[in-house]
Amino acid sequence: MPERPDLDHILREIHETLAPRFGEGAVADYIPQLARVDPRGFGMAVITLDGDTHVVGDADTAFSIQSISKVLMLTLALGKHGEAVWSRVGREPSGSAFNSIVQLEYEHAVPRNPFINAGAIAITDLLLAGHTPREAIGEMMRFVRSLAEDESIAIDQAVARSEQATGDRNRALAYFMHSYGQMRHPVDHVLGVYFHHCAIAISCRQLARVGLFLANNGRDPVTGGSIVSPSRARRINAVMLTCGHYDQSGDFAYRVGLPGKSGVGGGILAIAPGRAAVAVWSPGLNAFGNSLLGSLALEMLARRTGWSVFG
Amino acid sequence: MPERPDLDHILREIHETLAPRFGEGAVADYIPQLARVDPRGFGMAVITLDGDTHVVGDADTAFSIQSISKVLMLTLALGKHGEAVWSRVGREPSGSAFNSIVQLEYEHAVPRNPFINAGAIAITDLLLAGHTPREAIGEMMRFVRSLAEDESIAIDQAVARSEQATGDRNRALAYFMHSYGQMRHPVDHVLGVYFHHCAIAISCRQLARVGLFLANNGRDPVTGGSIVSPSRARRINAVMLTCGHYDQSGDFAYRVGLPGKSGVGGGILAIAPGRAAVAVWSPGLNAFGNSLLGSLALEMLARRTGWSVFG
Amino acid sequence: MPERPDLDHILREIHETLAPRFGEGAVADYIPQLARVDPRGFGMAVITLDGDTHVVGDADTAFSIQSISKVLMLTLALGKHGEAVWSRVGREPSGSAFNSIVQLEYEHAVPRNPFINAGAIAITDLLLAGHTPREAIGEMMRFVRSLAEDESIAIDQAVARSEQATGDRNRALAYFMHSYGQMRHPVDHVLGVYFHHCAIAISCRQLARVGLFLANNGRDPVTGGSIVSPSRARRINAVMLTCGHYDQSGDFAYRVGLPGKSGVGGGILAIAPGRAAVAVWSPGLNAFGNSLLGSLALEMLARRTGWSVFG
Amino acid sequence: MPERPDLDHILREIHETLAPRFGEGAVADYIPQLARVDPRGFGMAVITLDGDTHVVGDADTAFSIQSISKVLMLTLALGKHGEAVWSRVGREPSGSAFNSIVQLEYEHAVPRNPFINAGAIAITDLLLAGHTPREAIGEMMRFVRSLAEDESIAIDQAVARSEQATGDRNRALAYFMHSYGQMRHPVDHVLGVYFHHCAIAISCRQLARVGLFLANNGRDPVTGGSIVSPSRARRINAVMLTCGHYDQSGDFAYRVGLPGKSGVGGGILAIAPGRAAVAVWSPGLNAFGNSLLGSLALEMLARRTGWSVFG
Repeated sequence: MPERPDLDHILREIHETLAPRFGEGAVADYIPQLARVDPRGFGMAVITLDGDTHVVGDADTAFSIQSISKVLMLTLALGKHGEAVWSRVGREPSGSAFNSIVQLEYEHAVPRNPFINAGAIAITDLLLAGHTPREAIGEMMRFVRSLAEDESIAIDQAVARSEQATGDRNRALAYFMHSYGQMRHPVDHVLGVYFHHCAIAISCRQLARVGLFLANNGRDPVTGGSIVSPSRARRINAVMLTCGHYDQSGDFAYRVGLPGKSGVGGGILAIAPGRAAVAVWSPGLNAFGNSLLGSLALEMLARRTGWSVFG
Repeated sequence: MPERPDLDHILREIHETLAPRFGEGAVADYIPQLARVDPRGFGMAVITLDGDTHVVGDADTAFSIQSISKVLMLTLALGKHGEAVWSRVGREPSGSAFNSIVQLEYEHAVPRNPFINAGAIAITDLLLAGHTPREAIGEMMRFVRSLAEDESIAIDQAVARSEQATGDRNRALAYFMHSYGQMRHPVDHVLGVYFHHCAIAISCRQLARVGLFLANNGRDPVTGGSIVSPSRARRINAVMLTCGHYDQSGDFAYRVGLPGKSGVGGGILAIAPGRAAVAVWSPGLNAFGNSLLGSLALEMLARRTGWSVFG
Repeated sequence: MPERPDLDHILREIHETLAPRFGEGAVADYIPQLARVDPRGFGMAVITLDGDTHVVGDADTAFSIQSISKVLMLTLALGKHGEAVWSRVGREPSGSAFNSIVQLEYEHAVPRNPFINAGAIAITDLLLAGHTPREAIGEMMRFVRSLAEDESIAIDQAVARSEQATGDRNRALAYFMHSYGQMRHPVDHVLGVYFHHCAIAISCRQLARVGLFLANNGRDPVTGGSIVSPSRARRINAVMLTCGHYDQSGDFAYRVGLPGKSGVGGGILAIAPGRAAVAVWSPGLNAFGNSLLGSLALEMLARRTGWSVFG
Repeated sequence: MPERPDLDHILREIHETLAPRFGEGAVADYIPQLARVDPRGFGMAVITLDGDTHVVGDADTAFSIQSISKVLMLTLALGKHGEAVWSRVGREPSGSAFNSIVQLEYEHAVPRNPFINAGAIAITDLLLAGHTPREAIGEMMRFVRSLAEDESIAIDQAVARSEQATGDRNRALAYFMHSYGQMRHPVDHVLGVYFHHCAIAISCRQLARVGLFLANNGRDPVTGGSIVSPSRARRINAVMLTCGHYDQSGDFAYRVGLPGKSGVGGGILAIAPGRAAVAVWSPGLNAFGNSLLGSLALEMLARRTGWSVFG
């Protein structure tokens, strides 16, 4: 494998190869705001540890971050509560759909991991400790903007409102955990914050920049600032690899071989430790709720660069 | 982290730190032959890509390979059938115990991955294609001995017989799959081979040697022989990382950060890609059926060497 | 068996036999109002088709009707919507706890029967068709008072408020069904009505009177008024027999042999078709959430009268 | 309702009404011997307590008794072991398919009731106490022939052999229970007996005669002989009502209102306590594995006679 792959060339190749398939997959339509997106959109950004940024396609188009924000929620929660986070959620793959309530009952309202909805709701409950909902949302926005070095990143309020209006499944999860005494704050507060975190609008370029610290042992290689300890960065990557793609996490590890987290907005953040952070966006989803072409793009990137955590 | 950690020193430290706890955990007793082992046994072996072997404790004591053989079964099956293997088993973490039959029913007798019992039984069925049971067992033994460069590795016939005598749960899994038309060979043949594969007696030194090709892109760094393609080596590592420790796989990834596969004989094989293969053995198991001190030893090794696939 | 059992004598015997055990079982404590009840309370009332009323113990003490109201909800819903009710709930025993959410997911938010909480919530949604919550509550109260010929029956507002305050598990069930499009009215409205229906305070004497029409082919034998058709009365009895005691329904059918419905307030309504309606109350519950001594009392009554639907 | 319905007339009406639909439903084809039956066959027999026999259609055609034999197995087991039977199986409806293995795992290999396959296999294990398989089969045949007063009833050996050859799902259930220590005899012995019990060939006329004691408080009204106590007869009827039609038991109770047990051979035995025993046969099954037209015929019979245990 080339030590320094020609990333611009590789991205162009990926874009060309996939272009005939743009629009494949099913755009999430559970809220009107997501359904309104152009299904043929496709963007990709790779930022290497030296800060070089390589992009292709709609890499500057903002899309809805959705579940990718769960990585940031987990990072913030670990910062506030340390390993005590794991008394509230597990860190095992779930073997079921992202919004399943079955396992929650069998396991007494302790979600299997922080990347299924129930788990992220429990994490949000932790982030509210000592905060009003507004403050908790503000903390997240400061974190994202600071990581991206971009103050323009904002919440799409129409998406946030729409999530509120249609979030009954998440309400069921939250009330269920509440009924087991697994929530410290009112369900309305927790979900209000959760929905806002999911409604962040972000581009591939911004998202890759946000994730760069995870590729560099927890330190931002551009600013030099330490975001989390090396050990914590590795551990967040581990959770992404085993749980980042819902019930397709094993398949993503097999085909791509990199820690990654997907969202139903069509984005995926992937981490090549010691090399780069990658963000891809294509709104058509596969049956597991992961970006169809986004996954393929990452598989092609991994094959052509030789980037894999597995050898 | 040190570029070349002092492995002899590290192994001694691990041994000393854990020595007061030797005997902790519950020795598997589902067959008398496993229960008879010395619960205070502990061995560890690290073989780096240059072939240097570092050992501590009972690294030359043979133990029962048990489920670690599932990695070798998968490797052989991929060699015979290629990616068609994945029409017979999935590659997703199971979210349940190693011998659970629940998911098998919900998913119509297609096991979730090749490392739960049902999955390995399905893989064994594949290995019988064109073979008598005796031949299938012989093929595995030639493979193991050749990888280890050690013709002395043998099946513990008392263990194999004992597995046969007590294997009702595995029989239930096999007949269940058979009833769905998911088995090509008689249940007796398949289980006969499966039980023999699980009854291989092997030491830490031998096991680390067996796994070395997985740390070196599929090529044996000592003999130079190619065992599997680089891509396949990565993929086997991926399945080990997401599924190698039953319903504790996420936790192992989080704490150790290396692909690994455990067996109820108390052994664990772990792979540090580009660096080394590691085998550890301590017969006391934790609640998930994984070696209690073996997991801790690997966590200590990973921390002290800085070896992790996640950064 | 005696054609006309001496019911006063039998009730006295039952009371005497059970008196040493008064207080056994666990009083429901999920809301303070229920926990405050005297655990040693015990009452029983039998009303035969000729209107003769036989009572023993605290037969005039009001207790919380709780899930027994589900029989009345079902009766009203069948009156309003006929067999279309069964497009919203099934009529199969659930094989799981009264408040389980697992089966709801496996069966796409269609509750298994109208006597588990999810099913009664779906029924309440039906009862709201064309009504405000206040009207729906009013309709139920008129129905109960008319059946009992007793205008004094009332809702215990403290219990209703307390249910509201602690009803997160029911909220989870309702939002879950809402998320599947299985609810026509706002969750708040539906649960408001549901909680009030469960908070009716009623005595054994009143409850037996309320249920008398079910023992007499749907016709009130005292007033001569037709409440439901004979066929519908039989069918409501059938649902009570197969589903009336949560995951202990089979056991109740086996030991008592009469259709019955229990509530966590400690009451049970049982129907001896062609003979009598029976109400018993004892607040201590068994592990399945059914009145411990109430079940025993009914078993003794059935044995001594020979009343059984099974021969 | 008529005190003495004209059964001959009613049976003719049922036959005429259903004749255009003969052949509907799916004939069980899991063994060739069952698939070979004429799908348009239809027979029905009603025997009242005074011994009057009313038949229509193919009431003297022998069909495979299949799961209806579970009622006889339970009767024999209660005779041998009394209430201790209930330490080996529950008596609750299962909420899942007749051959499901899921609940068996969740409930530690204690089947939910004696009428699902796992439960009947556990019951067969009880029937083997002190017997060889041949003796256990002989005991059942003596019991059936004596109840029917017909020595010609025999096992269809081709069906029995075919069950053996294709019984992998039952083998899975049996080995699963064996692995939990829930079986006292070798799986081969138990299943050998079980398969023979299911392979009894019997006609509607014979089957109604066999079940007559259950309609008459446990006593054969023709011979006057006591088969079981009145209490036990009621209890067997109770289990039939709550568990006799797999996951359609609630629906059968709702529509027919009589205890009944179906078999995949297309037969159903129904009991009208104090009135009659009824057998119907039509080989086409519905999605739950119960005779489609057989259920309808019983619903029509119940409506026209007014027979129902529920009023």
